[in-house]
Amino acid sequence: MRVYLAGPDVFLPDPHARAASLKAICARHGMEGVSPLDAPDGVPEAWRALPLARFIALCNEAHIRACDALIANLTPFRGPSADVGTVFEVGFMRALGRPVLGWSNVAADFFSRTRTVAGAHAVGEEWRDDAGMLLESFGMTDNLMIDGAILASGGTIEIADVPPAERWTDLTAFERCVAALRRG
Amino acid sequence: MRVYLAGPDVFLPDPHARAASLKAICARHGMEGVSPLDAPDGVPEAWRALPLARFIALCNEAHIRACDALIANLTPFRGPSADVGTVFEVGFMRALGRPVLGWSNVAADFFSRTRTVAGAHAVGEEWRDDAGMLLESFGMTDNLMIDGAILASGGTIEIADVPPAERWTDLTAFERCVAALRRG
Repeated sequence: MRVYLAGPDVFLPDPHARAASLKAICARHGMEGVSPLDAPDGVPEAWRALPLARFIALCNEAHIRACDALIANLTPFRGPSADVGTVFEVGFMRALGRPVLGWSNVAADFFSRTRTVAGAHAVGEEWRDDAGMLLESFGMTDNLMIDGAILASGGTIEIADVPPAERWTDLTAFERCVAALRRG
Repeated sequence: MRVYLAGPDVFLPDPHARAASLKAICARHGMEGVSPLDAPDGVPEAWRALPLARFIALCNEAHIRACDALIANLTPFRGPSADVGTVFEVGFMRALGRPVLGWSNVAADFFSRTRTVAGAHAVGEEWRDDAGMLLESFGMTDNLMIDGAILASGGTIEIADVPPAERWTDLTAFERCVAALRRG
């Protein structure tokens, strides 16, 4: 089984080492991890004329289409939610109807995290931010589209309560996803 | 043409009035706007046993599948990027191969916005945040997966430079998307 490894891990100081670590865990469980950093097969010649950012986007889409499942690093990234590039890819794979799994190294739920950063306040039974916009308070890991899609796809969300200093190194929750995917 | 109206607009103080405004603009251009707040047709009975958040997620997915195009409000939401629920839906529609368009009421590009909030600093020719993670600096509206997908789908990204007080009311850029979609 080929598994696309979605996450802001590509922004880490040594993204190739990180990809190798993720792939090694997949291999231990009999799976092939596919990183956004991998060169895709059969790139159409026309893509090479595109600006680099658009070329990368098309290569990542092609990688996802060529995989059987997706595991997303949903650890909050520069705000209360997961990295948006990762979330895009979760939505993309969900539309293809294949299993999507997620993991996060932050245990606080989405509502708790949003309440901290958005200057939120209670209005009756609801919570709103300074712009008057509603906070989701469903006890989910992130926005309901993300949790909803993963669960509907048959996937799981694995959470580890990791100290901030190890948030981008600890792979315990990731490995739990790989094991869950292997069990099917 | 049926157009799904993705955005954090559902979190506004009066989301039904907002949906009506968006739909009125679609109607003026001969299109049918479909809001996440609309009741979907033919909901499977099994969905009604799910928790509300998961029910909403499945209804929104069904709405997107039943639409011909998607217009996303990418105005930054509680951080440097667009709302993750919206971005999930952009990825979902992109995988279906139909046109995706985006609009934003913030003119500063993604790099400028990220540089402001992430405690970023230059390291040689790159920019990194306090966790050592790379900032994208491609001059795009948001993460490259979002811009890349919209442009590859044949869509456009319409930007308006709107003062903060009108950021969640001004629909000029939205109407430019609708007009662009009508022109094809």
